[in-house]
Amino acid sequence: MKIITFLTDFGTNDGYVAQMKGIAASKTYARLIDITHEIKPHNILEGAFILQTTVPHFPPGTVHVAVVDPGVGTDRRGIVIATRTQILVGPDNGLLIPAAKFLGDFVVYEIKNKKFMSNQVSNTFHGRDVFTHIASQIINEIEFDEIGPIVNDYVDLDFGKTEITDKTATGKVIYIDSFGNIITNIDGRKLNGVLDFGKKIKVYLGKRQKQVSFVKTYDMVKKNEILATIGSSNFLEISINQENASKELGIKPGESIKILFS
Amino acid sequence: MKIITFLTDFGTNDGYVAQMKGIAASKTYARLIDITHEIKPHNILEGAFILQTTVPHFPPGTVHVAVVDPGVGTDRRGIVIATRTQILVGPDNGLLIPAAKFLGDFVVYEIKNKKFMSNQVSNTFHGRDVFTHIASQIINEIEFDEIGPIVNDYVDLDFGKTEITDKTATGKVIYIDSFGNIITNIDGRKLNGVLDFGKKIKVYLGKRQKQVSFVKTYDMVKKNEILATIGSSNFLEISINQENASKELGIKPGESIKILFS
Amino acid sequence: MKIITFLTDFGTNDGYVAQMKGIAASKTYARLIDITHEIKPHNILEGAFILQTTVPHFPPGTVHVAVVDPGVGTDRRGIVIATRTQILVGPDNGLLIPAAKFLGDFVVYEIKNKKFMSNQVSNTFHGRDVFTHIASQIINEIEFDEIGPIVNDYVDLDFGKTEITDKTATGKVIYIDSFGNIITNIDGRKLNGVLDFGKKIKVYLGKRQKQVSFVKTYDMVKKNEILATIGSSNFLEISINQENASKELGIKPGESIKILFS
Repeated sequence: MKIITFLTDFGTNDGYVAQMKGIAASKTYARLIDITHEIKPHNILEGAFILQTTVPHFPPGTVHVAVVDPGVGTDRRGIVIATRTQILVGPDNGLLIPAAKFLGDFVVYEIKNKKFMSNQVSNTFHGRDVFTHIASQIINEIEFDEIGPIVNDYVDLDFGKTEITDKTATGKVIYIDSFGNIITNIDGRKLNGVLDFGKKIKVYLGKRQKQVSFVKTYDMVKKNEILATIGSSNFLEISINQENASKELGIKPGESIKILFS
Repeated sequence: MKIITFLTDFGTNDGYVAQMKGIAASKTYARLIDITHEIKPHNILEGAFILQTTVPHFPPGTVHVAVVDPGVGTDRRGIVIATRTQILVGPDNGLLIPAAKFLGDFVVYEIKNKKFMSNQVSNTFHGRDVFTHIASQIINEIEFDEIGPIVNDYVDLDFGKTEITDKTATGKVIYIDSFGNIITNIDGRKLNGVLDFGKKIKVYLGKRQKQVSFVKTYDMVKKNEILATIGSSNFLEISINQENASKELGIKPGESIKILFS
Repeated sequence: MKIITFLTDFGTNDGYVAQMKGIAASKTYARLIDITHEIKPHNILEGAFILQTTVPHFPPGTVHVAVVDPGVGTDRRGIVIATRTQILVGPDNGLLIPAAKFLGDFVVYEIKNKKFMSNQVSNTFHGRDVFTHIASQIINEIEFDEIGPIVNDYVDLDFGKTEITDKTATGKVIYIDSFGNIITNIDGRKLNGVLDFGKKIKVYLGKRQKQVSFVKTYDMVKKNEILATIGSSNFLEISINQENASKELGIKPGESIKILFS
């Protein structure tokens, strides 16, 4: 049983998401699963982060439709990315790239063939009229090279540079989750061998500076105490046990972080 | 594979929507798809708008359960509307009518037959105990005339009068979507031949008056510039490129709009 | 066709819920149905209430994954509860108990067997790495005693004491729904025979005191008038017809209620 997922910045108040699902349900027997529709409007980086951290948990053959698309109706291209296991469909604005890279080798196709689109493509809603149509066709096993030409000059995106030495780690905040955990772009797996759980570290976060414990789980510090840990998506995060760290510390995405292993 | 959709004003904090789905999943193999549960409490017009603009994207045989139902527990009737393609189930308060009209010829049945309801119909939740039960039975292919008598005096609803001449279009605002786009009841298809894309038009919106461009897509004006376009549901809408037009302009549903093609 | 439901305090902004569904969809053909993800963070009582009032509407064989889990990563146990009809999976913190009791006789198993978990159990997300994995295995029909030992010292939870005499009912507020209805722990079925619909009653709610009608449906009082009724989950609730009673009256969960049948 195949799967189509949906990630958008549409919210759930309107009928837009259901319109996409109506199309997909008309054309396929795939299971239709929401990733989220609460990406902040036009925030491509946030969408890319959620997509990258979610797709690894889906099975081979899953087709992901992702639409954070401030350029809809302009000449920005629509693309399909075939990885070895899963398929990504959406605008060529970087949104799909971190997920594609995480999944390994990939090929990017420009969506050109009008026979895979709606008969009437609206100017403002390619998520429905182009991306969901093509995702449904992919579920129904068309050949990728029927979609359009391979492109190598797609819009790239990454989560920013990080640097890890035997004494420091440097990066930035890329996401605040709904618990207020401050998620950075520092890959927790790269801290293996240089930083051990249980150690005290010095954290420079935006303009703030804190001595905190680097621990395996939130509950290894007292309630309301700040901590650093490796989150469920393997990124280093700064949290407060049972509190909203982002609000308490006044930290937003984009701010720099530096850690001293003292 | 059949489909039941759900549109309500219940929100998603409570268990109410899941209770409906539990019933439907007990009785059918249909796919269960949310339209939205964020209709403003008791706002029948908003529910009718979202339903009308969404149902055209679903396949024949789909059964839509719609519950915006301030009169639950009174003697307002419950109805099933059979159109040539899809079926609508909900209260007789106008909610289903614009969708039914859009889908073409239709017949309205009053829900009378208790054998299609829950054994214990609660006084406050017909969405679960009546409408979802009957929707499930419809999926399982009962005859419509077993449901109850045909009624012709159902509660009617439309989105209000519009007038289009060769120089003007007049109507009102019926919905603000979650991007802040101001959606009117003026059918964009009726502007074909009288108003061309690229033209400057004069918009009287509530107490405001603006000179704006009538364009095919948001991006044909500068960022933060106001525009008029035909939205993805074919209604004329007033938007601001990458901004929330409703907030910027202070416009809410119900306000009048008049356009001069200058 | 089997069903897995999900109830969490994760919200729907992040990818966490979709990650759980990705796992479940990889391992089973079950239908995946959301109960809610809007439980207030770490509010076990609220989660327990929504779960208890929702599970009765699901068919036998349904597996419910519930995750309101402030103790994740500590040594709090994970449990599976087998009732005669449905199965509950989640943390051993009381969350599952009211639902289990409502469903009748039950047995509690501690989740011990690592072969039913993810190969890499994260420290912060057992909802995905433990509970969804085991739920999927249960759908695939493992024997319960393979999961781990039966435990009888699970963390208990109830909705608090109530007392009903022929002249009074006493209890407390356990939940405010999204319409603002004030739901108490007083079982409406126990009022049968001692209190009839249509009667005036005296309600002491927190510090307030009101004379209200005990009615079958909201609409039996005027718009904006306060009322008492038996809600769709069979608990006594205090409401205002077409208004938000919780906001109007300033009442929150935990406050005491006493009713005089005058």
